[in-house]
Amino acid sequence: MAANEIDWLLDGFRVFKRHHYSHSPELLRRLTTEGQSPKVAVVACCDSRVDPAIILDAAPGDLFVIRNVANLVPPCESGGKYHGTSAALEFAVRGLEVSQIIVLGHFGCGGIRALIEGSPWVHKEAHFLAPWITMASEARDRALAEVGNVDGEARQRACEKRGVVASLDNLMTFPWIQRRVQADKLTLHGWYFDLEAMALMRYDPAADGFAPLA
Amino acid sequence: MAANEIDWLLDGFRVFKRHHYSHSPELLRRLTTEGQSPKVAVVACCDSRVDPAIILDAAPGDLFVIRNVANLVPPCESGGKYHGTSAALEFAVRGLEVSQIIVLGHFGCGGIRALIEGSPWVHKEAHFLAPWITMASEARDRALAEVGNVDGEARQRACEKRGVVASLDNLMTFPWIQRRVQADKLTLHGWYFDLEAMALMRYDPAADGFAPLA
Amino acid sequence: MAANEIDWLLDGFRVFKRHHYSHSPELLRRLTTEGQSPKVAVVACCDSRVDPAIILDAAPGDLFVIRNVANLVPPCESGGKYHGTSAALEFAVRGLEVSQIIVLGHFGCGGIRALIEGSPWVHKEAHFLAPWITMASEARDRALAEVGNVDGEARQRACEKRGVVASLDNLMTFPWIQRRVQADKLTLHGWYFDLEAMALMRYDPAADGFAPLA
Amino acid sequence: MAANEIDWLLDGFRVFKRHHYSHSPELLRRLTTEGQSPKVAVVACCDSRVDPAIILDAAPGDLFVIRNVANLVPPCESGGKYHGTSAALEFAVRGLEVSQIIVLGHFGCGGIRALIEGSPWVHKEAHFLAPWITMASEARDRALAEVGNVDGEARQRACEKRGVVASLDNLMTFPWIQRRVQADKLTLHGWYFDLEAMALMRYDPAADGFAPLA
Repeated sequence: MAANEIDWLLDGFRVFKRHHYSHSPELLRRLTTEGQSPKVAVVACCDSRVDPAIILDAAPGDLFVIRNVANLVPPCESGGKYHGTSAALEFAVRGLEVSQIIVLGHFGCGGIRALIEGSPWVHKEAHFLAPWITMASEARDRALAEVGNVDGEARQRACEKRGVVASLDNLMTFPWIQRRVQADKLTLHGWYFDLEAMALMRYDPAADGFAPLA
Repeated sequence: MAANEIDWLLDGFRVFKRHHYSHSPELLRRLTTEGQSPKVAVVACCDSRVDPAIILDAAPGDLFVIRNVANLVPPCESGGKYHGTSAALEFAVRGLEVSQIIVLGHFGCGGIRALIEGSPWVHKEAHFLAPWITMASEARDRALAEVGNVDGEARQRACEKRGVVASLDNLMTFPWIQRRVQADKLTLHGWYFDLEAMALMRYDPAADGFAPLA
Repeated sequence: MAANEIDWLLDGFRVFKRHHYSHSPELLRRLTTEGQSPKVAVVACCDSRVDPAIILDAAPGDLFVIRNVANLVPPCESGGKYHGTSAALEFAVRGLEVSQIIVLGHFGCGGIRALIEGSPWVHKEAHFLAPWITMASEARDRALAEVGNVDGEARQRACEKRGVVASLDNLMTFPWIQRRVQADKLTLHGWYFDLEAMALMRYDPAADGFAPLA
Repeated sequence: MAANEIDWLLDGFRVFKRHHYSHSPELLRRLTTEGQSPKVAVVACCDSRVDPAIILDAAPGDLFVIRNVANLVPPCESGGKYHGTSAALEFAVRGLEVSQIIVLGHFGCGGIRALIEGSPWVHKEAHFLAPWITMASEARDRALAEVGNVDGEARQRACEKRGVVASLDNLMTFPWIQRRVQADKLTLHGWYFDLEAMALMRYDPAADGFAPLA
C-alpha cells in the first residue's frame, strides 16, 4: 500500500527533528538565518545505493548535491532550454562559491549499462533517457577500446570510470569553472564508489587511472 | 586548504563502510547483486540543508533521488537535448517502476528567491540558471497574486509551495506517469519542508493547500 | 592486533566530533556548562547487542544508563561496600531527579542463561558472576514454575522477563523511589527487547505479562 | 507528561528496527544465533553525555559496556555480595574473552565532583553513592597533591584522570586479567573524554600522563 511505503519516512523525519531541532536546533537555525554555505558540490547518480549523504555521513549544510542519471556533466553549451545540471553547477560555483566539486561515479550504474548493452527498451522507448546517456558515448567508446568487450564487469567499470573523466573534462568547458580552477580557488575531483569491492577511488590525472582513496 | 575540506568525507566513508560492510554487508551485497529496487523517487533541491536522505533518515536502496535547483519538474517536451530531470524520471518510473514520487520543496530556496527578487546577477550573468528557474514563473505569478507582495517570507513560502504544485502538474504531462497514476500504480506527493518551523507539510489537492505531515 | 581493534573507534569519534562539535557544538556546550539533566534512566545489560543508545537512537544528554550483567537491580540493602547499581540509581533519582526509570531486559542474556543452565564454569570459577546472578534466582524459579522446563527458548524468555519484574519490585524497596512513584513524580517501566522477534515489549502489571510496545 | 518523555524512544526504536531489521537483518540475526563476541569492553560512567556507543559511533555487537557512577573499577576482593562491576568484568574477560578493556573517564563527572567538594547531600544522605565514590578517594588525594586546590576545573580534570589510572591499577588486581595482560592476550586502555575541549585522550603509562588520541 502507498501509505506504508511512505509512513516510514515520517518516522525518519521525527527522528531527524528530534536530533536536529529538539536537541540541537542551532545548526539548522543558523543555516536558515544565514543561508547555506557548503564548501563541496557533488554531482552524483540518482541511484538509491549511492546517496552521497549516506556514504559520506554528511550533515545538513555539508554538501550541495546534484543528482542525475549516471552523474553526467554536459559540456558548456547554450541553446537547449532545460540545462538542469549546468544551472545547478552555476548556482554552486558562481552563487555559493564552493571550493570543491566531486563527480561521484559508481559501479553498477543502470544508465551506463543501458549505454553499453543497448537495451532495446531504452533505445526504442526512452525518449528522454536515451539522448541523455548518449552524452557518455565517447567515454564508452574509449573505455571499450581500452578494456575490450569480453568481461562484462570490467567493461562496466571502465565505462563508468571514463564517464567520470568525461564529466571532469566537461566541467572545464565552463569558463567560470576553468577560471577558478586556474586561480586555485576551485578543485575538481573524480571519485568512483565501487559498491562491490566497497572501495572509494579517486581519479589521478597524472596516471590517468583510479586509485583507492579510503 | 582543499585537503581538509575533503578529508572529513573519508572519515565519513570509513564509518559508513564499517557499518554497512564490515558489520553488515548483506544489504549492499544484495543491492549490488540484484540491483536497486527503490519504491520511492524524490525530486529535491540541490540545497545542502534539505538532503532527503538526511531529513528522512533513509538507508541505501530506499530512495531514488533527483536533485536540481528548486526541485523543478519540466513539462513533458521533446527537442532539447539534455533533459536530465525527465530522463531520471523516465528511469525511475519506466525502468525501476517506483510506486511513489515525492516532489520535495523547501523554505529558503535560493532559486525561487532569485526568481522573485530578480537578482541582477542571476538575470544578467546566469546563462543556465536564469532560464532554468523561469520554469517556475507561472507558479511565482500565481503565488504573488494570492499572497500579495508585502511580506517577504510569506511571498517566498507561497512561491515555493506553488512551485511544488506546478511540478506535480508537470509530472502528469508525462504519459507514462499519467497512465500509472490513473491505474493506481503510482502516487504523486507534494511535500514542503519548512526549515524554519521545522515542519514537514504535504499538498492536499482537495483543499489546494499544504497541511502538516509530521 | 590490538591497534586495529581500537582504531575504528577513533574514526567513530572523529565523525561524532564533526557532527556534535564542528557542526553543532551547542548541545554539548550546553550540557557541559549547565550539566546533564536527563529525564530517563535505563538499567540495561552490558550485552553488546542491546545498547540502549543504539536501539533507541538516543542523543547525548538523553539517557542516564546503568549497565550490569542481566540488568539487575538489587534490593535496597545496606552493608556491602560496592553497591554500584544502587549508587547509580541514587544519583539518578535523588541527584538528577529523573522522572522515568526503564529496566530493559533482553532475549539471549548470557547471565540468565548461566543461571538456568548452571554452567559449570560460572558456578565453579566465577567468583563474582555467580553470586551476582543469584540475585535473579527467585525470578528464575518462578518462571520455570510457570513455563515448565521443556522448551529452551521459552524458558529463557520467561526467566528474562521475570528478571525484569523482579528488578521492578526491587526498585520499589528503595524508599526514595517508592516515595516518588507514589507522588507520581517517577514512573517505572519494565521493557523487554526480543532480539529474535525484533520486538520491544513492556510489562503490564495489570495483566502480569508483556505486550508489544513498538 | 510521562508518556511524551517515553514516546520519542519508540520513534527511535522504529528507526533502529527499519535499519537493522527490515533492511539489513543479518547482523542482528547472526548476533542472536551465534551469540555476541565483542572484542572490546568499556567501563564508562552512567552520565548521559558520555555514552560510549554515541561518542564512538558503535554498532550492535561492537562494545560490551559496563556503566557505573564515575567509571570505577573496584579492586579484586571477595566478600561483598553485589560486585556488579567485577561480575561484568569477569563475564567479559573469562566468558567472552575480549581482547581490549577501555576505562573511559570524562570531564564534568558528578561522582568525582561530589568526592572533591564534599557535597553535604551526598555525604549525609547518599547511603549508596557516598561509599561507592570513596573508592576513588586515594586517586583524588593524589590528584590534589599534584595540582593543588586552586583552580576548580584543573582539580576536577586531575581527579577524573587519576580515577581512570586507579581503575587501570585495580583491573590488574584481578588474577584472570593480570594473566591475560602478561600473556599479551588482553590490552588495557585508560581514556579520557574531555567534553569541554572535545578531545579524546589516552593514558600513557611511560609519561604517567594523558595525551590526545583523536
